[in-house]
Amino acid sequence: MVNDHGLSYFEDYLLGTTYECGSVSIDQASIVAFAKEFDPQPFHVDPAAAAAGPYGGLIASGWHTAALVMRLLVENYLAAESSLGSAGLDELRWPHPVRPGDTLRVRATVVESRRSMSKPDRGIVKTMVEAVNTDGATVMRATAINFILVRPDPGA
Amino acid sequence: MVNDHGLSYFEDYLLGTTYECGSVSIDQASIVAFAKEFDPQPFHVDPAAAAAGPYGGLIASGWHTAALVMRLLVENYLAAESSLGSAGLDELRWPHPVRPGDTLRVRATVVESRRSMSKPDRGIVKTMVEAVNTDGATVMRATAINFILVRPDPGA
Repeated sequence: MVNDHGLSYFEDYLLGTTYECGSVSIDQASIVAFAKEFDPQPFHVDPAAAAAGPYGGLIASGWHTAALVMRLLVENYLAAESSLGSAGLDELRWPHPVRPGDTLRVRATVVESRRSMSKPDRGIVKTMVEAVNTDGATVMRATAINFILVRPDPGA
Repeated sequence: MVNDHGLSYFEDYLLGTTYECGSVSIDQASIVAFAKEFDPQPFHVDPAAAAAGPYGGLIASGWHTAALVMRLLVENYLAAESSLGSAGLDELRWPHPVRPGDTLRVRATVVESRRSMSKPDRGIVKTMVEAVNTDGATVMRATAINFILVRPDPGA
């Protein structure tokens, strides 16, 4: 599988390049359903309590936002043939609330790229991931750390 | 609502204290269901591909682990009357895979606590969150940044 950007292996992830990863919309029913299962705080699950609460209305769990962003990264940035998973993320932030009806655009910028010293079949790619709403506000930002296979040697 | 540890307001979160937050089990069906929706990489959704893949079997999406951990924090650490949400997390890591049948124990340690300069009704609590499996391996670790209301002045 090669995704839209032609990203198949470690060598394809170009330092400094920003890859657009599509967009996703979020509605109240899905906000409440996710939060009832995983993050049942009043401002995520109870529209009336949320209206009287710190955000003046229902907002999405940051984990829901992160999961929706991940979906777009899997579809448009990570490649099934080379993605070996993630060590984690640095400075995950939710600077602005996500509200019902929002549409989020996701982009991924390669901020660091190096071959693994200990495992020569792979590289480590650090990616600044950003999700932006239609008003231009950044609703999520993080630096993801991913292990990605290098292109197989055709002579091997 | 006061949870098991008597955590209601900012003042209750004691620097250096570790709060046990209970445990959660994860099965293959829920791993696959979550990942099909949010993180459809082969090692999360396809048992056969996962068996031949980098982890030698199906593993949970790190976002699924994070969401399950969040549930325990909401139930046992954050208080509905004072939690104002999170700015994000630093150094979110998944050092060890989560596999079907795992049971994860979650604990939360207050590593920083200070009153907000700009908003006197709240404090900022930084929490080292850890999830550990029954073999003692840490499967998730992060430093969460939460805004928490101070105890209301009864004379106000």
